[in-house]
Amino acid sequence: MEAELKEMLDDLESLGRSLPDPSRNASIDKLRSRVKHLSELAKFAPAHRSKVKDMSAEVVDSNPYSRLMALQRMGIVENYERIREYSVAIVGIGGVGSVAAEMLTRCGVGRLLLYDYDKVELANMNRLFFRPEQVGMTKTDAAVQTLSDINPDVVLESYTLNITTVQGFETFISSLKNKSFRPDKEGSGVDLVLSCVDNYEARMVVNQACNELNQTWMESGVSEDAVSGHIQLLIPGETACFACAPPLVVASGVDERTLKREGVCAASLPTTMGVIAGLLVQNTLKFLLKFGHVSPYLGYNSLKDYFPTMEMRPNPQCANAACLERQKEYMLAKPARDAAAKAKMEAEAPSAAECPLHDDNEWNISVVDDSDTKRTDAASSDALPEGLTRELPSADEFKNASASGSADTNIDDLEDLRKQLEALNS
Amino acid sequence: MEAELKEMLDDLESLGRSLPDPSRNASIDKLRSRVKHLSELAKFAPAHRSKVKDMSAEVVDSNPYSRLMALQRMGIVENYERIREYSVAIVGIGGVGSVAAEMLTRCGVGRLLLYDYDKVELANMNRLFFRPEQVGMTKTDAAVQTLSDINPDVVLESYTLNITTVQGFETFISSLKNKSFRPDKEGSGVDLVLSCVDNYEARMVVNQACNELNQTWMESGVSEDAVSGHIQLLIPGETACFACAPPLVVASGVDERTLKREGVCAASLPTTMGVIAGLLVQNTLKFLLKFGHVSPYLGYNSLKDYFPTMEMRPNPQCANAACLERQKEYMLAKPARDAAAKAKMEAEAPSAAECPLHDDNEWNISVVDDSDTKRTDAASSDALPEGLTRELPSADEFKNASASGSADTNIDDLEDLRKQLEALNS
Repeated sequence: MEAELKEMLDDLESLGRSLPDPSRNASIDKLRSRVKHLSELAKFAPAHRSKVKDMSAEVVDSNPYSRLMALQRMGIVENYERIREYSVAIVGIGGVGSVAAEMLTRCGVGRLLLYDYDKVELANMNRLFFRPEQVGMTKTDAAVQTLSDINPDVVLESYTLNITTVQGFETFISSLKNKSFRPDKEGSGVDLVLSCVDNYEARMVVNQACNELNQTWMESGVSEDAVSGHIQLLIPGETACFACAPPLVVASGVDERTLKREGVCAASLPTTMGVIAGLLVQNTLKFLLKFGHVSPYLGYNSLKDYFPTMEMRPNPQCANAACLERQKEYMLAKPARDAAAKAKMEAEAPSAAECPLHDDNEWNISVVDDSDTKRTDAASSDALPEGLTRELPSADEFKNASASGSADTNIDDLEDLRKQLEALNS
Repeated sequence: MEAELKEMLDDLESLGRSLPDPSRNASIDKLRSRVKHLSELAKFAPAHRSKVKDMSAEVVDSNPYSRLMALQRMGIVENYERIREYSVAIVGIGGVGSVAAEMLTRCGVGRLLLYDYDKVELANMNRLFFRPEQVGMTKTDAAVQTLSDINPDVVLESYTLNITTVQGFETFISSLKNKSFRPDKEGSGVDLVLSCVDNYEARMVVNQACNELNQTWMESGVSEDAVSGHIQLLIPGETACFACAPPLVVASGVDERTLKREGVCAASLPTTMGVIAGLLVQNTLKFLLKFGHVSPYLGYNSLKDYFPTMEMRPNPQCANAACLERQKEYMLAKPARDAAAKAKMEAEAPSAAECPLHDDNEWNISVVDDSDTKRTDAASSDALPEGLTRELPSADEFKNASASGSADTNIDDLEDLRKQLEALNS
């Protein structure tokens, strides 16, 4: 916009110069001052950051990735930059999905696929992410607008559709299968699907697609009273699928929309949804970048700050045919999986018979005499960082002090002590 | 900006009409088309929502508070609109503080006081809230810009200062004391202080101010490796203050800035900070609106999804003089507190001797004969919503069925059963 205004100013100048009658100059001056005022206003319009080719760990204020690359230095993640290879699909860009998308965008994930058919309303403003000026836009368009401003390095694909329709489901499946982003990837075109929808019908559709594609996904949900929620990891064949132990309303085959009443809406809070989105994306990062433990199920009861966990095995009588297929495959692959696990364990910990003790001692570990109580170096686990001192002696120092004290103790010392006591009492 | 452009178009029209020479019209036309193009661009500039006088529970898309007022209908909060009376101070508008501020703004809190001296950098973009176009602005200015766009109903006070300086501390204390927002309020001018700072020096300063003012506050923090964090409730005199059990670096009197190394920065993640901000503001809402249980301390270990809790009593040897004052006051008020608790308990549960059973029975509770097993109405706790059916009989139905069966059992029935078994085996 600034370039446009500059050109306009030039046009006005040339028009002013070409006018024979100086009385017109007042009009030109007025227009000129208007353009200048607009230029001032335009300064507050969004500027954009340019794309970054490689993630740098350099600690400078202008590096948007320094705090993320620091995860490597801290020993949490082995190779953070691998996040750029991953694709994550988010179904439902509401209170949880939009925040999850923003978190992954700020983390610099490679590619995000966003699915929603809804529009932004003022009634959504009690949750994070969408802004009042986006009211009326589709949630996918508004999300792409905000996310591309935040981090232009992320490839954003937006699908404004309802996955529960026949046409929508087909597009959903084919978009998940598309491998143009990373043609060498095994399985589907995405690394993880996050379900952030607010109804069971859509969850069953995500479940169906992921069972068909043998696609690992994570479920999330927030209760109608806004004060609890959960996340769940679903690996087809290995864990329970969403149809293995369906909610009562799904098992009964009732259309859940008939349970909604006019003039009544579910409560929601930015806090609960922010916590659930945070837990969901944290587990996504652990899953993609292979650190920590990915929770199979994690609940959040905000009234008591209680976080239940559990694990669910697949149901051999699951009503979903694709789930039964995946269960069968998982069972058939068990001997190979067990053999691989055994081989890995043996490779990591060779037995005493195969590898004699201390034959190879790259860490220079040596056995010391128990009676030698002196510290061999300052890097012991009790050492403090430079500049810190202990207020109380450590347990060892205390023991040493009393030990050396008792060695020196003789009758004279006791006599001294008695005299001091008498002096104090007098 | 749209109004400005409209006026400019009018000016151009009148200039065009007044020109005698038609050859100038080409220039005017060119300018006109430029203004029209700018009008198109301006449509994407932020629009603002107008203020709302009262929070309405009406379920319409245009009501920004419908999902929050629904907390009343759901029985979670007694009077949600009271949130407009409360003032919350947030010290440190970084990865946790900015998200906490956004959550409280979207919840429609009455007044927010924001304290920070820092500027927005690209290196902050791996956490939620700030946008690349805000780089270079002070965090307080950028926050006020974003928050007032999101919810113009919230009164925002911004303090661009460092509370650890003498001048900063004085302004901090006097702003907390200021009661102009709600002159009838007891104690200080704010209902809660949230500490969202990233160093111990600032925490000790918040602790000092809150001990002096007898001000309840909440502490928050995220670890340097970005994968854990905590929140803590501090009530002067009643719980441990931050100086009661200080971190080693504080107890040793070392300047923590000397521990930082050039070219090394702490790691941070939008997920961990989002979860901590969510837990912090959820507990703030529970504290202000009096629902659920406010956690005295809640940790978050994201590698294991483990959430430790604990409680800390004040240290009678605390180094903070104001803390000792508050502890003394709390002890002195104990008899009055105990008496009030006893009176409340007695008022809520009158003894049998004082109030004869069933003398006043407004809920029409009656004792029924144990042998009467029939349901008296359909609203029993086991009842399902309309449209749902059970796949398996309930425990009661199963018992009734077998009980009625055994009453009818006679020799003929056993004979029938034997015949059926034989038929099956044949």
